[in-house]
Amino acid sequence: MPLPLPPVPARVVAAPMAGGPSTVALAAAVGAAGGLGFLAAGYRTADAVAEEVGRLRAATPAPFGVNVLSPVAVVPAEAARVSAYAELLAPRAAARGVALGEPVHTDDAHDAKVAVLAQLRPAVVSFAFGVPPARSIDALHAAGVPVWLTVTSPGDARAAVAAGADALVVQGWEAGGHRGGGTDEEPAQLGLLPLLALVRRVTDLPLVAAGGIADGRGVAAVLAAGAALAQLGTAFLRAPEAGTAPVHAAALTEDRPTTVTRVFTGRSARALGNRATSELAGHAPAAYPEVHALTAPLRAAARAAGDAEELHLWAGQAHVLAEAVPAADLVRRLAAEAREALAAARS
Amino acid sequence: MPLPLPPVPARVVAAPMAGGPSTVALAAAVGAAGGLGFLAAGYRTADAVAEEVGRLRAATPAPFGVNVLSPVAVVPAEAARVSAYAELLAPRAAARGVALGEPVHTDDAHDAKVAVLAQLRPAVVSFAFGVPPARSIDALHAAGVPVWLTVTSPGDARAAVAAGADALVVQGWEAGGHRGGGTDEEPAQLGLLPLLALVRRVTDLPLVAAGGIADGRGVAAVLAAGAALAQLGTAFLRAPEAGTAPVHAAALTEDRPTTVTRVFTGRSARALGNRATSELAGHAPAAYPEVHALTAPLRAAARAAGDAEELHLWAGQAHVLAEAVPAADLVRRLAAEAREALAAARS
Repeated sequence: MPLPLPPVPARVVAAPMAGGPSTVALAAAVGAAGGLGFLAAGYRTADAVAEEVGRLRAATPAPFGVNVLSPVAVVPAEAARVSAYAELLAPRAAARGVALGEPVHTDDAHDAKVAVLAQLRPAVVSFAFGVPPARSIDALHAAGVPVWLTVTSPGDARAAVAAGADALVVQGWEAGGHRGGGTDEEPAQLGLLPLLALVRRVTDLPLVAAGGIADGRGVAAVLAAGAALAQLGTAFLRAPEAGTAPVHAAALTEDRPTTVTRVFTGRSARALGNRATSELAGHAPAAYPEVHALTAPLRAAARAAGDAEELHLWAGQAHVLAEAVPAADLVRRLAAEAREALAAARS
Repeated sequence: MPLPLPPVPARVVAAPMAGGPSTVALAAAVGAAGGLGFLAAGYRTADAVAEEVGRLRAATPAPFGVNVLSPVAVVPAEAARVSAYAELLAPRAAARGVALGEPVHTDDAHDAKVAVLAQLRPAVVSFAFGVPPARSIDALHAAGVPVWLTVTSPGDARAAVAAGADALVVQGWEAGGHRGGGTDEEPAQLGLLPLLALVRRVTDLPLVAAGGIADGRGVAAVLAAGAALAQLGTAFLRAPEAGTAPVHAAALTEDRPTTVTRVFTGRSARALGNRATSELAGHAPAAYPEVHALTAPLRAAARAAGDAEELHLWAGQAHVLAEAVPAADLVRRLAAEAREALAAARS
């Protein structure tokens, strides 16, 4: 029997956003308003994750989730292309006076983080980048922690169900940030509504719908489509509690198209188009996290300089609708608007 | 003041599908069940359109719409690329023993069809491929006929509102068949839910939501998102009343990814991936209807031979959910399931 969903009266989840935006303050504010907040364990040490969980528990009794990245396998041919990409990036790094990073392959301390989380027992542990090792799921289940797996295709959903997922985070093509499924190749580019319908054929597990949801009507739409919860990321990026870089938060308000790109991390992610995505498109290998590590100093320098053209500006397709409002207010408004939208649709 | 929507108690529109699938029988069955049926005027003479309207009126008193294609302008550089594409296609045509078509540019008898429709006054005339000439909209409005314009971006929506549209057909990236907006370049690839939210910022006109809607939950979802009506195309392709080629109807049941391609017509359209889409990708110019005319004999021969690999297999992303059920049954089921889904989402 799958472990049940935690209570989420607002039916809104604040998506985990690694690399800065997800903070203890954001998760606490979301939880206090009846949503489900998330911490993002990616790119942090296990100790840092434990420390964040402790601070969040001190801030609120509300349940929350923690997202962990599954280890990613890279084919050797792609790994071999990293040095060519580094050569292409070298002039850009030189122009900023920084050295490129070492393109190392790591598993982001996966086992240590899972061990810590099995001990600390958050209300949910979700995984992105495909199904984690069976030992990770087993350890969490043994501790009574529900496991959510991210899917972007019916094939992902079959794998997640077979692995023992308790719920699926169904990520449509509209979503900002990294594609969270089991493969970095997605010829089908499935939008959220068809993806929900196709995944529903695979499983009766609860579905958490993600991708391009920007307002209460969007929340209502995915609930009507059969999702148990609606997950929003970009919508929270401009909240004062989020740790979004100012240059990123400002760029979200601009009406420029997003694009799915590997240029920043070696793994497909949706970002605002900028000089980096257009000039480097087609050159980046599918090598994560090697490319992530390679470009990190370049991106940090661009962020520090406030230069939106050389930075990973993760954004979902409805990014211009993100508002600079406190997260708790946003959660309450989304829930109220969703209720109104469902009532209006029936009339 | 915009002209109002016709009464559509089932809140379901059967999308116009030119080139065969849309038939008088399909539109009649949809209308009889409380949906809004559509005839597709594309690739037909004005006389043939008038004849179809007459037969449909004889079959049912229900309101129906007729879709017309707006004239498409092609930049000279793209038109010049047509002969190179013809050379690439020549061996394929030779292998089938057919000659390629003349790559002529036509406006598909636009003015003649609009004149006929202003006279016959269907409940709606919709346009794809951007805003038609002002004289077309004026003629229909003078006859009291509501004009719906197809949009795939907020920019399209602004243009449609400025042109005097009475409602917008909002076509998400998920949709099968031709992209119906004002441009053949869509870097933003907007999924239906974010597109609805972004278009709603532009206008309060009624929105008809299209793209990847496959079942009653999908209908409920777009109504909750604020659409007035849900438009489905692929879902009707396997109905016995549809004029879908057998090879096309059979291919829809296969679990293969769709792709947005210009290889068949010179204008972007979502189709099941096949040998033609993979081998010709990147070679087809943005020249519609030149490429449409060029490839027509090749596609007709493949269709006659039952060869799914050389044919335009238009399909939305949820194509595997299309069922071979009578259209009226499908409309009634969609309406009932949508009501249930909206009630369930509120609980």
